[in-house]
Amino acid sequence: MRKVTFGGANSFDNYFARNDGSVDWLIWSNEAAAFMKAYWKTIDTVLMGRKTYEVALKMGGGNANPYGGVSNYVFSRSGKAKPSPGVEIVSEDAAEFVRRLKSQEGKDICVMGGGLLAKSLFEADLIDEVGFNIHPVLLGSGIPVFHEMNRQIDLELIDCNVFKVGTVMVRYRVKSAGKKAAKKSKSR
Amino acid sequence: MRKVTFGGANSFDNYFARNDGSVDWLIWSNEAAAFMKAYWKTIDTVLMGRKTYEVALKMGGGNANPYGGVSNYVFSRSGKAKPSPGVEIVSEDAAEFVRRLKSQEGKDICVMGGGLLAKSLFEADLIDEVGFNIHPVLLGSGIPVFHEMNRQIDLELIDCNVFKVGTVMVRYRVKSAGKKAAKKSKSR
Repeated sequence: MRKVTFGGANSFDNYFARNDGSVDWLIWSNEAAAFMKAYWKTIDTVLMGRKTYEVALKMGGGNANPYGGVSNYVFSRSGKAKPSPGVEIVSEDAAEFVRRLKSQEGKDICVMGGGLLAKSLFEADLIDEVGFNIHPVLLGSGIPVFHEMNRQIDLELIDCNVFKVGTVMVRYRVKSAGKKAAKKSKSR
Repeated sequence: MRKVTFGGANSFDNYFARNDGSVDWLIWSNEAAAFMKAYWKTIDTVLMGRKTYEVALKMGGGNANPYGGVSNYVFSRSGKAKPSPGVEIVSEDAAEFVRRLKSQEGKDICVMGGGLLAKSLFEADLIDEVGFNIHPVLLGSGIPVFHEMNRQIDLELIDCNVFKVGTVMVRYRVKSAGKKAAKKSKSR
């Protein structure tokens, strides 16, 4: 089954961006670039929440499709999200939609930014991996990576690499999702 | 000058404890115990906010002084915090008090739990180091490690160690505090 990964670059106090969406605090590194290049080859689908999409639109001057060669889905319950070339607006329940996507043939799936989308996917047990490049900064405020969730998510460290510029790249497997899948296959 | 360290064990979504103060999710390890034993030798003073203190009181059955052999200060602007043996309640401004403590002779100083106390000390540029044993779990809710701050705090990675149980121990130097100190000594 296709793997769903949530992640990105975060501040140590777990913000993805400043309140205005800016990420001027990000530290570029060859190591992170190499990681992203390899990661990019494993996915063919990018999922975004409406807020992340709106920031992307603002940053991209009205063109919110920075990710060519992949399918971009934006979740907007109200359906109010502005369409953009190469982007499909999804107004149905994100969990339902992603569950169906996972059962289809394809490469892996990336959940971009938008802690609110991740929250609903975590709660529905649909995220398989978490990967973050932790930056050495406390932003103090901004767009949060994590939102309050109705349950605990157990993780298992896959690996941890310190990049030369001082960021810490961690990857975790989501254990609770794994457990459910194991239970299901046992009951077959 | 005495070094002030803020830290502890946190979940990956940056909680110190569940909402009721419980920390049943903590993973005991020889490595963390050895680290804490060595760290403990470097400090002689523990600072707590009122909320952390109240959790400690609840946990300790009315005795909130688990830290023997060190000076325990609890900050409570209202002065309403319940006294307890070995604990001094401080109602004056935390930043003023800690600035004075730092200028006195002594070992290093530990800021325990209480993200709100840390917030005010970060904003006053009084924290020198940050150390966290990041646990492989998203608690979803609880007592937050970080609160919104009125400014950004730049950090510099000191070291990062992966413990066998799957926690990641990171230590950071606070750069902004360092910069200010450097400026001051230059202008002398």
